[in-house]
Amino acid sequence: MQVQRLGWQALPDGSRAIFLLDLGSGSDWQQALAQLRRRNPASQLIALGLDSEFALMRDALRHGCDHCFPRQMSHPAIVAHILELQDSQQEDAYRVLIVDDSVTAHALIRRALAEQGVETRALTDPAQVLDALRDFQPDLLLLDMYMPGCNGVEVARIIRQHPEYLSTPIVYLSGETDLALQVEALRLGGDHFLTKPFNPVFLNAIVKSKIERYRALRRSMLHDSLTGLLNHTSSKSQLDMALEQCRQQQKPLCVAMLDIDHFKQVNDRYGHPVGDQIIRSLAWLLKKRVRHSDILGRYGGEEFLLALPGASLSQGFAVLELLRQDFAAIHHPYGDGYFQLSFSCGMAAFPAISSREDLIQAADDALYRAKRGGRNRVECA
Amino acid sequence: MQVQRLGWQALPDGSRAIFLLDLGSGSDWQQALAQLRRRNPASQLIALGLDSEFALMRDALRHGCDHCFPRQMSHPAIVAHILELQDSQQEDAYRVLIVDDSVTAHALIRRALAEQGVETRALTDPAQVLDALRDFQPDLLLLDMYMPGCNGVEVARIIRQHPEYLSTPIVYLSGETDLALQVEALRLGGDHFLTKPFNPVFLNAIVKSKIERYRALRRSMLHDSLTGLLNHTSSKSQLDMALEQCRQQQKPLCVAMLDIDHFKQVNDRYGHPVGDQIIRSLAWLLKKRVRHSDILGRYGGEEFLLALPGASLSQGFAVLELLRQDFAAIHHPYGDGYFQLSFSCGMAAFPAISSREDLIQAADDALYRAKRGGRNRVECA
Repeated sequence: MQVQRLGWQALPDGSRAIFLLDLGSGSDWQQALAQLRRRNPASQLIALGLDSEFALMRDALRHGCDHCFPRQMSHPAIVAHILELQDSQQEDAYRVLIVDDSVTAHALIRRALAEQGVETRALTDPAQVLDALRDFQPDLLLLDMYMPGCNGVEVARIIRQHPEYLSTPIVYLSGETDLALQVEALRLGGDHFLTKPFNPVFLNAIVKSKIERYRALRRSMLHDSLTGLLNHTSSKSQLDMALEQCRQQQKPLCVAMLDIDHFKQVNDRYGHPVGDQIIRSLAWLLKKRVRHSDILGRYGGEEFLLALPGASLSQGFAVLELLRQDFAAIHHPYGDGYFQLSFSCGMAAFPAISSREDLIQAADDALYRAKRGGRNRVECA
Repeated sequence: MQVQRLGWQALPDGSRAIFLLDLGSGSDWQQALAQLRRRNPASQLIALGLDSEFALMRDALRHGCDHCFPRQMSHPAIVAHILELQDSQQEDAYRVLIVDDSVTAHALIRRALAEQGVETRALTDPAQVLDALRDFQPDLLLLDMYMPGCNGVEVARIIRQHPEYLSTPIVYLSGETDLALQVEALRLGGDHFLTKPFNPVFLNAIVKSKIERYRALRRSMLHDSLTGLLNHTSSKSQLDMALEQCRQQQKPLCVAMLDIDHFKQVNDRYGHPVGDQIIRSLAWLLKKRVRHSDILGRYGGEEFLLALPGASLSQGFAVLELLRQDFAAIHHPYGDGYFQLSFSCGMAAFPAISSREDLIQAADDALYRAKRGGRNRVECA
C-alpha cells in the first residue's frame, strides 16, 4: 500500500486507489467530489472528519463517497477500516451451490452467475447437500422448491440443524407464487424467495448483496476492531480447523505467541493512543509478512497469536526471528524524536504437541521463558 | 429446569416442555413422533442419536421434530444447545423501527405488527434515524422508499456507515415495483424489498424470520459453544457497554474473575469429558443465579468473567461468596463415588477503577492473591 498526500486539484484520475478526503476544508466540495467520482469509478472514496450529522453524510454519499468516517472515529479505527476495505478487495470469488433436479435450470443459473464471476457447483440430488456444503464451502445456496423425495424447505431445515452453516444464506428459486408457501419457506430457515423464470440481473443482485452482507457480518464479528486481525475467540476456532487439516494431511503446524515488551510503560509514558498505534504497527507488520493460509490474531491486549500450517518448529523459528529483528528496528515517532520497542515470542509445534490447548499453553510457557531470559527473543517449547 | 426420563408410552401431553427423543430405539417412531407433535404443539421436540444421514433427518423433521442432534454430537454440546433453546424462549420482544413520512402508514404497520407482539417505534423524519437506532436498539428497520429530503436507499447507506448497526436488517416498504430500483436498493445495504400495499401476514413473516435469523447468527458468533455463555471477545465488548452505561448513570459496577481450582488435575485424573462437564456445571450454576442485566462469559479455559452493573464491591462480594460456597458443596459424580471442587475469585469495582482493562487487570491480580492465599476464596482489589 502506497500513501500519497495531495490537494484536491492534484488528485489523479483513472487509477484504482483509496481516496481519503477531508471534506471539512472546502466550501464547494460537493462539485469536486462528484467530479472525482466520475473520473475514478473503480476507486474507493472515503470522507473523513464529518460530524456524524445526517444531512452532511447524506450529501457526501449522494455526491459519490463510498464511506463516511465520523470525526470522532479514532485514527487506529480508521486504519483498521481501510485495511478491511483492502482485504475485501482481495477476497476470494463468491461461491454458490445450486440444488435443483433440473439440469436445464443448472445451466441457466450457472451461465447467469458466471457473467459476474461467481463460482458455482450444482447438485440434482438434494441428499448430497451436506457433503457438498462441507467440500465446496459455498457462500450461498440456491434451492429449488420442488424436487423428487423432498422439497426445498425440508432441505433448508436439514441444513439449519448444523450450526456451522447458520451464516450460509439460503435463497429459494421456484415457479411457485403461492404466498402462504413463501411465508412458510422463509419462516423455516430461508433468506429470500425468487420466482422462476428468473431475471438474470435480479438473480445476480440478490446473490451478491446477500453474500456481501453475510461476509461483512462475519468479518465484523470475528475480527478485532483495532487491528482488523482475528479476535481472541476466532483465533482459537481457526487454529482448531487448521490443526484438524494438518492432522489429516500429516503436515506440521507451528504456533507462536508474541507479546510486546514493556508495553505498560509505553501507555504510561506516551499515552493510550500511542499504545494503540504500536499495537497496530505490529499487526500491520505481521499481516504484510504472513501467507493467506496462516492464522493471525490479536489474542489479548498486546499479545498476538500466529499459526503457520505446514511449517515445522525450525521453519517457524526462522520466520519469527526475522520478524523480531524487523520490529525491533522500527523507529516509532513521538514528538520530535522516536523510540524503539521489541517483542518476545514463544513457539510450539504440532505433531510434537497434539491438542490446541496444549500448543497454546506450551507456546505461552516458552514466551514466559523468553521474558525471563531478557526479552526481545524467540524461545521454543 | 426439571428433567424426567420416560418411555414413549408415558410421555405427557399439553405441557410446554423440551422433549429429548431417542429415535434409534423404536421401529415405528414416525407414528409415535407425529402423535407427540400433535398433542404438544408448544413443546420443542429434539431427536437425539441420529446418524447425520439426510433421509433420516428429513423423516424426523417431517414427522414433527424441531431439531435433530447428530449421534457424534458431544453431551456438553447437546446441553449447551438446550440451554440456548431455553434462552431463546425467554427472549425479549422483537423491536421494529419504522421510518415513513406517512402517519397513516405508521398506524397500519404498527397494528399489523402488534398482533404478533412486536414492539414498534415510528419516525416521520428520517434525519432522526441515528438517534432512534441508539435509543430504541431495534432488531429491524422498516424503511419507506420515498420521503421528503431523501429516499430510503440514502437512509440505509447512512446507517451502514456505522459498524455497530451492521447486524440490523433493513426491509424496504414501497409502492415502487421497478426492478432496477429494487436491485439498487438491495445492493446498497438493504435486506428485503416489500411492495405496498402490504399483506399483514407476509409482513409479519418477513419481519419475524429476519429477526430470528440475525438473532441466531449473533448468538452463535458471540457465545461459547461449550457453555452457551458469552465468549472471551463478546464478554469484553459487553463489559465496555455496561461500563459506559454505569458511567452515564453514575452507578457502580463490580467485576469478578473466577477460576476453577486445580482444574488441570481434573482433566489428568478423570479425562477431558469430565473436565468439560465441570466447566459446564459451573456455567450452569452461575447462569441460574445472575440477573438478566449481568454479564457472564467464559473468559478462558476454566476462567469466567462476571460483571454486575449497579453492584458495589461489597454487594458483589456477598454474591460471589455465596456462589463460592454453593459450588464447593456440589458432589460431582465419578464412577461409584464423587469428588468436590472449588473456585477462586478476584474482584474489582468501578468507579474506584475506571477503565475496562484496569478493572480486569485488578480483578486478575486479586484472583492471583486468592490462589496464593490457599484457593477456594474471594479476594477484592
